[in-house]
Amino acid sequence: MPHSLQLGIDRNRRFKLASRPVGTPTRDTWSFVTEPVTEPETGEVLVRSLFLSLDPAMRGWMNDEKSYLPPVGIGEVMRATGIGKVVSSLDPDFAVGDVVRGRLNVQDYAVLKGKDLTKLDTTLAPLPLYLSALGMPGMTAYFGLIEIGQPKAGETVVVSGAAGAVGVLVGQIAKLLGCRAIGIAGGAEKCVYAVKEMGLDACIDYKAGEVQGQLRQHCPDGIDVYFDNVGGDILDACLANLARHARVVICGAISQYNSATGVKGPDNYMSLLVNRARMEGFVVFDFAARYGEAVQRMGDWLRKGELKSREDIVEGLETFPETLLRLFTGENFGKLILKVADS
Amino acid sequence: MPHSLQLGIDRNRRFKLASRPVGTPTRDTWSFVTEPVTEPETGEVLVRSLFLSLDPAMRGWMNDEKSYLPPVGIGEVMRATGIGKVVSSLDPDFAVGDVVRGRLNVQDYAVLKGKDLTKLDTTLAPLPLYLSALGMPGMTAYFGLIEIGQPKAGETVVVSGAAGAVGVLVGQIAKLLGCRAIGIAGGAEKCVYAVKEMGLDACIDYKAGEVQGQLRQHCPDGIDVYFDNVGGDILDACLANLARHARVVICGAISQYNSATGVKGPDNYMSLLVNRARMEGFVVFDFAARYGEAVQRMGDWLRKGELKSREDIVEGLETFPETLLRLFTGENFGKLILKVADS
Repeated sequence: MPHSLQLGIDRNRRFKLASRPVGTPTRDTWSFVTEPVTEPETGEVLVRSLFLSLDPAMRGWMNDEKSYLPPVGIGEVMRATGIGKVVSSLDPDFAVGDVVRGRLNVQDYAVLKGKDLTKLDTTLAPLPLYLSALGMPGMTAYFGLIEIGQPKAGETVVVSGAAGAVGVLVGQIAKLLGCRAIGIAGGAEKCVYAVKEMGLDACIDYKAGEVQGQLRQHCPDGIDVYFDNVGGDILDACLANLARHARVVICGAISQYNSATGVKGPDNYMSLLVNRARMEGFVVFDFAARYGEAVQRMGDWLRKGELKSREDIVEGLETFPETLLRLFTGENFGKLILKVADS
Repeated sequence: MPHSLQLGIDRNRRFKLASRPVGTPTRDTWSFVTEPVTEPETGEVLVRSLFLSLDPAMRGWMNDEKSYLPPVGIGEVMRATGIGKVVSSLDPDFAVGDVVRGRLNVQDYAVLKGKDLTKLDTTLAPLPLYLSALGMPGMTAYFGLIEIGQPKAGETVVVSGAAGAVGVLVGQIAKLLGCRAIGIAGGAEKCVYAVKEMGLDACIDYKAGEVQGQLRQHCPDGIDVYFDNVGGDILDACLANLARHARVVICGAISQYNSATGVKGPDNYMSLLVNRARMEGFVVFDFAARYGEAVQRMGDWLRKGELKSREDIVEGLETFPETLLRLFTGENFGKLILKVADS
């Protein structure tokens, strides 16, 4: 008899994409339904969601356009990576009680193929860290900065969204690699945190004044590596302050994701010519074969206290529509995580 | 007694920058004056202009902004590279009658330091070629495509401004390297030339219809290398058609240089992320130490008839303001050169 019935699990709350938003998603973007739990078939595992990762990329998946993943279809449960506990398994590699990471989507329960799940060693770090420093944001920060940005000790690294899930790590990794690190974030609290807690050399509050002049002040020899999470005016300000042979890492463009008029390109892109610089995008999945290396190094730094992770955990699956918006209003501070259940 | 006086040379027609244009330069941008010829001092050479190179970059030098060269000052003679004949020399390395290349500027006569001039071997090719395939456009096409674009045999290379000074060479070099080459140019005449004379696989007439759909048709597997001379909508159309790991070479943005509202950035730049692609700028001067290598290879191709150069020669220094505009209206076909004197 399946475990789920033994446990009395029969109701699965799910957020489905009801319509494609123009601009900022609203409650109407979603249908919030309660449906019976599907039973796993051979090779499948039923997982109860504990923590779900809320990411800027989710906004892109809601548009009907080509990207590195197909869009979420209308009527489909919203895509999300999460950590959960196995409650029923027809895959011999997974036992009830195992903690796993995978594409659980925005719902209480998910049925997934065992091969699409990763079993986590929960003794190494608190669970939410597997969605932040030891999860996708960590991999994104690590490979984006090191492989695409190629910073050298002594160079100046600037990171926008410096208090966001990825940015909070990029700035610290840059320091660990011997670079000067300058953050850009919204609000004094985040900027103080970036300097006092993360150890950045400076952090520019873009809400408090003009960014370009402050960049010039903090980067008198120009920016060698700019790790861009935000796009828009801040990308342009950084382009205007590049050093020769600078590398601009395109990781995201959160300032543009909810624009109803589409993405606005960087008008200062000709700075790439003047400064013999390059702008390069990447998708973290391409580095999957090397995640182990990054987890080990990030884990070492975390254990030694040289790297700090920060999570912004909001409770309640039902808060998903509003909680997701925290990413775009700049409210979140560190990795935004939706807590769905205690165990 | 200086040669110039012996030759009766005492009047030098010069175009000076009178005001910084907003948008397209006009006659008011220039003051056209006739002044006495300056006499060379020790180490200097007096050169009579024969051919002047008119280049898109000149528009940038007219703006008061940071670039890879300082702006031309108000009241200064407009900067231009040219080929001329030595009429008087106080540098022992140069004799009267030598043909030289250097920054002659837009005037009949220039006084330059001998060390800033390059003596040309006029037996190798007709003089105008030293301003096109064997000059800066040739070096730009060669190093921009090969070093920044890094095309591999079998890849698809797209070049805009395909009938322009640089583009006319990029497409042919791409073919010589074993790539598929697709041009983008304005007008049927240029497109027919690109395919029939230059041997490109196809050429898209951007004036005759929508570019993006035609790119998709001619580049079914996406663009591996895009060599951008124009910026604007065509850059955006190419970004929308990139192949994975594509390289976008930023050589120029001629569609934007006369914009009174400033340069418009490429809205589709996030394609760099989706396609793990990069966009990189360069300045040809950085490759100066390797010009010899490029001249030799380009010269070989020219001699064998594998590479065709094309010059668009307009006569008369006095036509400079109108002739320069041919670059921006799309009228010029091949390297635009102003002929100043026969000998």
